[in-house]
Amino acid sequence: MTNHVYKKIELVGSSPNSIEEAIETAIARAEKTLHNIRWFEVVETRGQVDGGRVAHYQVTLRVGFTLDD
Amino acid sequence: MTNHVYKKIELVGSSPNSIEEAIETAIARAEKTLHNIRWFEVVETRGQVDGGRVAHYQVTLRVGFTLDD
Amino acid sequence: MTNHVYKKIELVGSSPNSIEEAIETAIARAEKTLHNIRWFEVVETRGQVDGGRVAHYQVTLRVGFTLDD
Amino acid sequence: MTNHVYKKIELVGSSPNSIEEAIETAIARAEKTLHNIRWFEVVETRGQVDGGRVAHYQVTLRVGFTLDD
Amino acid sequence: MTNHVYKKIELVGSSPNSIEEAIETAIARAEKTLHNIRWFEVVETRGQVDGGRVAHYQVTLRVGFTLDD
Amino acid sequence: MTNHVYKKIELVGSSPNSIEEAIETAIARAEKTLHNIRWFEVVETRGQVDGGRVAHYQVTLRVGFTLDD
Amino acid sequence: MTNHVYKKIELVGSSPNSIEEAIETAIARAEKTLHNIRWFEVVETRGQVDGGRVAHYQVTLRVGFTLDD
Amino acid sequence: MTNHVYKKIELVGSSPNSIEEAIETAIARAEKTLHNIRWFEVVETRGQVDGGRVAHYQVTLRVGFTLDD
Amino acid sequence: MTNHVYKKIELVGSSPNSIEEAIETAIARAEKTLHNIRWFEVVETRGQVDGGRVAHYQVTLRVGFTLDD
Amino acid sequence: MTNHVYKKIELVGSSPNSIEEAIETAIARAEKTLHNIRWFEVVETRGQVDGGRVAHYQVTLRVGFTLDD
Amino acid sequence: MTNHVYKKIELVGSSPNSIEEAIETAIARAEKTLHNIRWFEVVETRGQVDGGRVAHYQVTLRVGFTLDD
Amino acid sequence: MTNHVYKKIELVGSSPNSIEEAIETAIARAEKTLHNIRWFEVVETRGQVDGGRVAHYQVTLRVGFTLDD
Repeated sequence: MTNHVYKKIELVGSSPNSIEEAIETAIARAEKTLHNIRWFEVVETRGQVDGGRVAHYQVTLRVGFTLDD
Repeated sequence: MTNHVYKKIELVGSSPNSIEEAIETAIARAEKTLHNIRWFEVVETRGQVDGGRVAHYQVTLRVGFTLDD
Repeated sequence: MTNHVYKKIELVGSSPNSIEEAIETAIARAEKTLHNIRWFEVVETRGQVDGGRVAHYQVTLRVGFTLDD
Repeated sequence: MTNHVYKKIELVGSSPNSIEEAIETAIARAEKTLHNIRWFEVVETRGQVDGGRVAHYQVTLRVGFTLDD
Repeated sequence: MTNHVYKKIELVGSSPNSIEEAIETAIARAEKTLHNIRWFEVVETRGQVDGGRVAHYQVTLRVGFTLDD
Repeated sequence: MTNHVYKKIELVGSSPNSIEEAIETAIARAEKTLHNIRWFEVVETRGQVDGGRVAHYQVTLRVGFTLDD
Repeated sequence: MTNHVYKKIELVGSSPNSIEEAIETAIARAEKTLHNIRWFEVVETRGQVDGGRVAHYQVTLRVGFTLDD
Repeated sequence: MTNHVYKKIELVGSSPNSIEEAIETAIARAEKTLHNIRWFEVVETRGQVDGGRVAHYQVTLRVGFTLDD
Repeated sequence: MTNHVYKKIELVGSSPNSIEEAIETAIARAEKTLHNIRWFEVVETRGQVDGGRVAHYQVTLRVGFTLDD
Repeated sequence: MTNHVYKKIELVGSSPNSIEEAIETAIARAEKTLHNIRWFEVVETRGQVDGGRVAHYQVTLRVGFTLDD
Repeated sequence: MTNHVYKKIELVGSSPNSIEEAIETAIARAEKTLHNIRWFEVVETRGQVDGGRVAHYQVTLRVGFTLDD
Repeated sequence: MTNHVYKKIELVGSSPNSIEEAIETAIARAEKTLHNIRWFEVVETRGQVDGGRVAHYQVTLRVGFTLDD
């Protein structure tokens, strides 16, 4: 049995609706090119404001995935 | 074209329902006196607990706005 | 009137649905053995990913409660 | 019942005598223009030295107060 | 001779008078149930303000004690 | 002789040319309304990129000034 | 299927020989009273020195375990 | 209208002359393979010294770019 | 002579035996696709526990390598 | 007029009585060999506990002094 | 071939003109007494303001040098 | 009985073999000129890589020693 190696990349997902949707958006986009995503860690939560309302939530994630041997 | 200067202030919004609503509450209040709010950054998320349930989410934000020339 | 002393413990709650539900899950579980929970602070937000979607949000909290005299 | 919004400002108080007095000095000064101060958080403690003795303690605080509706 | 193991717990002590008294209050309370307290580390210093004066200093400590074998 | 109290505000200055010019831009703007600026601390340095070149340096500062008695 | 809740406690293990042995010492001690330890995170590595040699490595860990339902 | 996803990578640029030139060097190199660079954040500034003078400034950046859909 | 540009990526190596072996495992895996690895920085050390013993050390590294011109 | 250069050293002062006295003790000791101490910054506050009371406050300081030309 | 040991000291350089000149000033001063300076790391950038302009940039560095055997 | 004052210095030890050996190397070198070393704290662990293998572990330590009265 081998010792796994993971790689983490940093992504920023955005959503006009919620922090969770911003996270889901980033992970869904990453899934197009990476097939072994295992976990994420929230690094920063911020957003853009327009007319006194949140226009977009922007969530920075570190996303971890298994490297193929 | 001028080089913009922004100011950031620190606010704490609260909501009994969600983190997003606490953020919206703080920004809506700030909009009453500031008219150029551009972005926010979440600094801290905490809350009060009453009877084993979250009574209020309290989210500390840094809110950035353009200074008028 | 006495000077209160609080204790903080660190919990990780999880939920397949939202960050708020992960927080509520941790606090509801703590309430079973602690009866004076007063506040929480979010320390870390992360999650597990399965098939390109968030399987569980995992939120680490510090939970503060009053120590009985 | 409304959801409160708080603002935090950052002050530096100083005192030749003690850390507590430097904190009290900053809060007393803030009270002249703000009437709803609720809490403070110590951000940094430093001081000036003259002739091998502490000349002034300088304590940086974040001071939180309720915004009027 | 054994290799010792210590545990740290996080407490918040308060006092209307001084930071040191808030620390002493937390340690005295912990001593009621723990008998091998060895050291503390200050994690955060904050306080409540009432009428432009400090009502309570609140000091968060990590308190370390020896685990019995 | 009184114990001084300082206030710190957080500004973001920008410049297409250099970090120093972004700092100077923020301080010059603050000087229009504040007359006792004493020091600054760099909190963050970032910038916008356009066509593979830095379009603007953006420097976040904490600016400290004396509060009038 | 339930949403798990974990608790983290902070321990300091020590060893005259290695960082790994200090970690193992802390976890073996915790196992005496906790039966669902799942992971650890190293918080700090330090040590005592005697006669110009390391006398003890001291490793502070956060140890996570499943709370029974 | 889609919700954008950004990726951040970490680069170290160097220059014998200035911090700004080290930043520009890193971004110009990244532009060779990435065509949507939008912003950078300075993570660390350090340098090598030779004969009592700075030989190279070395600036670590996080560089953010839009992921193509 | 050119000004070098480095890239850093974040990897997690694991080993049942030691922190050093977890580091070596991550670097050996990275070497399969990157040929100019120059240095690493330990970001986090954690591990999984099974039956009161460390099952795997997991070490998160930032690994720096030279970008080809 | 020259551009000054300062050096900072890190000291730990202790006192059975107060945080301020621990700071004064460290600075008084440094004054024996350094004659241009200008400021200090508190890095950490901790202490030893004996019999449920604080035996010593231990305050880590960075102390800054002017280097002679 | 021996295993090198380095020492780091913390200096503050200042300059009325630029961050780079403040760094060079500190290193040139250190070179008078240390002959093996190898690298520096910027810890903090701040400055004094006079009349709405930067009077001095003040850059805190950690400077690393080889210890002679 | 006097109140002790300690000084901390920052060293980087290196070793081709292990983190512990890098720590021991730094402390052994410090012992040549300092005779009251009492403890160390690991600040950073990094290393150089050559040919896909760790060439040197480099461990930055803060080393504390008693100042003679």
